[in-house]
Amino acid sequence: MREISQAVIGRLPRYYRYLGDLQQEGIERVSSRELSHIMGVTASQIRQDFNNFGGFGQQGYGYNVDHLHTEIGRILGVDHEHSMVLIGAGNLGQALVKYMNSRRDRGFYFKAAFDISPKLQGKSIGEDEVPIYAMDNLAGYIDSAGIDIAVLTIPKTAALDIVEVLEGTQIKAIWNFAHLDLKVPERIQVENVHLQDSLMKLTYSIGEYEKRQETEQSTAKKSRRK
Amino acid sequence: MREISQAVIGRLPRYYRYLGDLQQEGIERVSSRELSHIMGVTASQIRQDFNNFGGFGQQGYGYNVDHLHTEIGRILGVDHEHSMVLIGAGNLGQALVKYMNSRRDRGFYFKAAFDISPKLQGKSIGEDEVPIYAMDNLAGYIDSAGIDIAVLTIPKTAALDIVEVLEGTQIKAIWNFAHLDLKVPERIQVENVHLQDSLMKLTYSIGEYEKRQETEQSTAKKSRRK
Repeated sequence: MREISQAVIGRLPRYYRYLGDLQQEGIERVSSRELSHIMGVTASQIRQDFNNFGGFGQQGYGYNVDHLHTEIGRILGVDHEHSMVLIGAGNLGQALVKYMNSRRDRGFYFKAAFDISPKLQGKSIGEDEVPIYAMDNLAGYIDSAGIDIAVLTIPKTAALDIVEVLEGTQIKAIWNFAHLDLKVPERIQVENVHLQDSLMKLTYSIGEYEKRQETEQSTAKKSRRK
Repeated sequence: MREISQAVIGRLPRYYRYLGDLQQEGIERVSSRELSHIMGVTASQIRQDFNNFGGFGQQGYGYNVDHLHTEIGRILGVDHEHSMVLIGAGNLGQALVKYMNSRRDRGFYFKAAFDISPKLQGKSIGEDEVPIYAMDNLAGYIDSAGIDIAVLTIPKTAALDIVEVLEGTQIKAIWNFAHLDLKVPERIQVENVHLQDSLMKLTYSIGEYEKRQETEQSTAKKSRRK
């Protein structure tokens, strides 16, 4: 099997998103040039990306939007539903449950939540009443309910113990919001959402832009003096 | 000014995070070899990364942890507080306000929230009672309160209009959770948190791992048959 680069994989969800938009607008066909214009990448980049997956049969004028959307969805694994559990039912965790479960058609669904707080245990989250259980039940629940993805929204101090529990289960992946990098066996896939890191990249960019402005202004001043 | 690669910038928040951990553990000095071991990158990579910023003066045995943490924090722009407004006070938005404002010492602070819903206007979020205002006041508030960052947690259909409003203000950056890519003037920095995209990368990895397993198993079966 051909190894696909991380950069290509990183672009697939974007393709999927843009094709979904086109579909909603009732557009049936799209050329790589049009797609390139919407996405802000070159048309040759798009053709190269798609060639990794056999090219998706561009015939005559462009790609069939429905077909391309379905195919990329299948490659991304969103053609079937993935069941999830939430670990840590704080503000962020509860918001994620409500957010994802209100968009169940997108292929991701929280079945249960777990929290150490006895105050939360026995309660439920959102309109479809996702139950909150005690942590002791976590491993048993994951294996009996056949859960695919564990979503970690706990402090980083608690994360290592939980990951050890998860390693003893059939879980396939961890969506990690805890503020640390996880080391797990190869069979468990990890995707991090480090919110603090993301904000720091933003403030770095602000600082860099301001430095560039200052440099340009002082250069302009000097050249006026001459 | 030397251009620093996106890959290096992407690693800076991780360095900052790991150095913060060392600091909390009371560790005063760290060698690039030790840092390399903790972070899972090579020691030469670390030295190369740091050389972009003048090397941070490694004398004798390793780096001074406090100094390195402070310097990287300064480069990232987290040595001073950044004020933020939330746009869209739904579940995710409210969770972000509570989450960030409870960690005010990290340098990010929500001062106000804005929402189109009259039901939310006049209410407030969290223990420090971040007020929720009507959208009409957004531009005026940003400029009079000197807000740095706008956090977008609104549906993508509403995002384009809001971005137009933001372009008319002195806002420096947008932290975008809306499910689309923004096109803004160069003076406004953007960092996206596309939660759906992140989950799709995860399910892609699950699928790839399962395919690899199947290939290995069928290869093993064939070789047993021989």
